[in-house]
Amino acid sequence: MKLNHFTDFSMRVLMYLNQKNDTPQSSLNDLANTFKISRNHLIKVVQFLSANQLILTKRGKNGGIMISERAKEICLGDLIHLLEQDDTPIVNCDSKPCIFQSHNCKLKSLFNIAYQAFIESLNQHKLSDIEFKTWSAIFQD
Amino acid sequence: MKLNHFTDFSMRVLMYLNQKNDTPQSSLNDLANTFKISRNHLIKVVQFLSANQLILTKRGKNGGIMISERAKEICLGDLIHLLEQDDTPIVNCDSKPCIFQSHNCKLKSLFNIAYQAFIESLNQHKLSDIEFKTWSAIFQD
Repeated sequence: MKLNHFTDFSMRVLMYLNQKNDTPQSSLNDLANTFKISRNHLIKVVQFLSANQLILTKRGKNGGIMISERAKEICLGDLIHLLEQDDTPIVNCDSKPCIFQSHNCKLKSLFNIAYQAFIESLNQHKLSDIEFKTWSAIFQD
Repeated sequence: MKLNHFTDFSMRVLMYLNQKNDTPQSSLNDLANTFKISRNHLIKVVQFLSANQLILTKRGKNGGIMISERAKEICLGDLIHLLEQDDTPIVNCDSKPCIFQSHNCKLKSLFNIAYQAFIESLNQHKLSDIEFKTWSAIFQD
């Protein structure tokens, strides 16, 4: 069981921006070079994070990308659920219709309860709880 | 966040065999026809379930596939963890080395704690708790 790649990478971008805070602001090139990924992939992530008010983007010479107050305050479980962009259950009973469908099968409901336990566990934390050395220390290694 | 297809399908095979119990025993063709999947895919699942004592297979004229006592007794969370065949964390910090690695990053540990909450929630149940009409009723629809 894995987070999808989009969620996994988005989390690392938010962690990086949260550490870096606004000194200095980051650029797409900065993020692309830091995480060694293509700008095209990065742009999709940045557009989603911006559309969901998790980052602030400012165009122009003094522009850049910053972490938002919302991203600092949102609980991690709610953040992961938002990034997953997926309200379908962990087990998929629909795409290939299951023979147990409409037979009072409790598989989906048991997994939904377990998923809530997963989210509630993460909701005890915020982005700032994922401590590590400051971003500057990372580049001093 | 999804279970992998192998786990998802293995669960449905076990649910089916648990309902059918041993009257009559199932065959590979029975399972392939019931779930509308290829024998090749099914054989991999059956071999794994048999190797892990979750089903019993008997060759010959009166042979077939049956649910095992272990499968009836194992807690669902432990069963899912076994089927996932994956001890790697939900976030993958290694395959593409993360810049936060070895910087006291708590992302992996927070997700491992949340995953344990997920497994413990499922461990309150067994296969028999996933109630639905008996297998015979399914084919009467």
